[in-house]
Amino acid sequence: MKKDLYTVAVVGATGAVGQQILKHLEERKFPIKEIRPLASARSVGQTITFGGKEVEIQEATPHAFKGVDLALFSAGGSVSLSLAKEAVAHGAIVIDNTNAFRMDPEVPLVVPEVNREAIQEHKGIIANPNCSTIQMVVALKPLLDQYGLERVIVSTYQAVSGAGWQASDELLSQSNAVLQDEQVEAKILPVGRLPQHHQMAFNVIPQVDVAQDNGYTLEEMKMVNETRKIFSENELALSATCVRVPVLRGHSESIYVELKSEYDLEEVRQLLSSTSGVVVQDQIEKQIYPMPLDATDQIEVYIGRIRRDLSHPRGLHLWVVSDNLLKGAAVNTIQIAEAIIAD
Amino acid sequence: MKKDLYTVAVVGATGAVGQQILKHLEERKFPIKEIRPLASARSVGQTITFGGKEVEIQEATPHAFKGVDLALFSAGGSVSLSLAKEAVAHGAIVIDNTNAFRMDPEVPLVVPEVNREAIQEHKGIIANPNCSTIQMVVALKPLLDQYGLERVIVSTYQAVSGAGWQASDELLSQSNAVLQDEQVEAKILPVGRLPQHHQMAFNVIPQVDVAQDNGYTLEEMKMVNETRKIFSENELALSATCVRVPVLRGHSESIYVELKSEYDLEEVRQLLSSTSGVVVQDQIEKQIYPMPLDATDQIEVYIGRIRRDLSHPRGLHLWVVSDNLLKGAAVNTIQIAEAIIAD
Repeated sequence: MKKDLYTVAVVGATGAVGQQILKHLEERKFPIKEIRPLASARSVGQTITFGGKEVEIQEATPHAFKGVDLALFSAGGSVSLSLAKEAVAHGAIVIDNTNAFRMDPEVPLVVPEVNREAIQEHKGIIANPNCSTIQMVVALKPLLDQYGLERVIVSTYQAVSGAGWQASDELLSQSNAVLQDEQVEAKILPVGRLPQHHQMAFNVIPQVDVAQDNGYTLEEMKMVNETRKIFSENELALSATCVRVPVLRGHSESIYVELKSEYDLEEVRQLLSSTSGVVVQDQIEKQIYPMPLDATDQIEVYIGRIRRDLSHPRGLHLWVVSDNLLKGAAVNTIQIAEAIIAD
Repeated sequence: MKKDLYTVAVVGATGAVGQQILKHLEERKFPIKEIRPLASARSVGQTITFGGKEVEIQEATPHAFKGVDLALFSAGGSVSLSLAKEAVAHGAIVIDNTNAFRMDPEVPLVVPEVNREAIQEHKGIIANPNCSTIQMVVALKPLLDQYGLERVIVSTYQAVSGAGWQASDELLSQSNAVLQDEQVEAKILPVGRLPQHHQMAFNVIPQVDVAQDNGYTLEEMKMVNETRKIFSENELALSATCVRVPVLRGHSESIYVELKSEYDLEEVRQLLSSTSGVVVQDQIEKQIYPMPLDATDQIEVYIGRIRRDLSHPRGLHLWVVSDNLLKGAAVNTIQIAEAIIAD
């Protein structure tokens, strides 16, 4: 697909990620002929501002993809399952931000800095990985290439916006209720459709997404399976503990990685510093390290607390932070689109 | 020391831990002849209520320990360094909650469920471990005894009250400022006396206590060194990443432990369930697991998310939560005192 300008549909235009996609398509001056914000019927009639113009939101139906070159989906897995193939049938290339197709062997799962070449294999749909996976693979890829990965153990500190605007609103209203000594209501986290909800304000919830039969959560298994697929390392040893913390934006990850070969710590720091999309912030003696508040609204992956494990000579600890709505979602989606039109 | 009733001094009586010590001495019906709340000169004249009576706070000076049987210190390391030996000289047994004597080879470092026998070796001072260490060793001890520990990797999610009332107040006032869209002031975390401070509200700070030359923080090295001392395992392989989260009370820990021998998961769950001071909450399929909000004001160590590592057959993941002010500090101190008077 090589054109001067493209018709781009954004499915889920009113959502947390959809709004960031629209904002960053504009900021990055993506070559747009027509922007087509799509959403559910209840948002029809609302408008968004794009390129200084008001654009009406249309209902996301199969017909809405007529003439669309690129369809960027972030309206939940069920919408992608029902409409992504319709969009492809209309000639669009779909970049899907949901879990619907990520593990489909026909669908490339892409982080451009990591496996841009996989885009070539697409059959109409390209999947954007889960937010917690993206920032981890960006950090691990140079280490994989340089030293090999023996195993990875990660514990996450995830922002509530990964569960949508409602979760962010709930964290704010719960925080306010705690401060006012009022009754706290919990209706969304850990997972909206599950029966039991927990207060997020001033609390930590060790569950992101639904439980799996093996005792892990779906989020934890996404990190394992998506990382294996992106790295084309089907046996990669990786275990995750995914935890929600009372943060609005920005996922943090405490990553232990055991490399296959010996490493020099300064060489690792240099390697990460020179990696595209990575910013190293690593001066604990000056209280400098990545934090979600600093990463908010930034598109890079921030890495700090880089240090050797105290007991394993090939063990390395990293602290990795990125904005889950941007590199973790909207910006990675646009970067895939940019790669499609460039290649 | 065997008496019917004891004269107990609480040094740091106005602090976050000191207040909990007073509260739990009362609740646990510790056999008190006289309670002597001590603090700095600026608190003199204030009173506390104990056993239904008003008791005046006295200044913590060497003379204040005259006639004291047990002196419970939690007023910071410098106060312990200047007064603990004075208290011992007056005949008191000191139980110290600060970092002042923990690694002193002359001073036992005690968690009663784990190494109660070490109390016997005291020469006047017994140290209470760091909060993040206590809950971890309570969880690991039965595994150490049953299977042996090959190595441990821990990432913490620590409440701000570990840094005192001021840090809790600051989290609340910062949260309020964010909600009111006002300027946020940061003066305390990560470490009050360091030059650079960070907002804690809706943020995560990957630093607890000051940096060490090896790139770890003091908190991280406390977890390593104290655990080795408590377990009498000087070579125990352990690395920690200590992180502050916007939670008022209750530390959470994501612990990876590699056992020396094979294990059965159900056997581990049974073993932990039958461990004194431990409550297992482990039904992810029902959204049941430990959380700091539930652990607040409780004296137990809560363990959940118990599952086998996906790639290492002897690898085990645990999620461990406890109230840092209680089992992590005040209650462990009192349990040491109870052991002293019982043995």
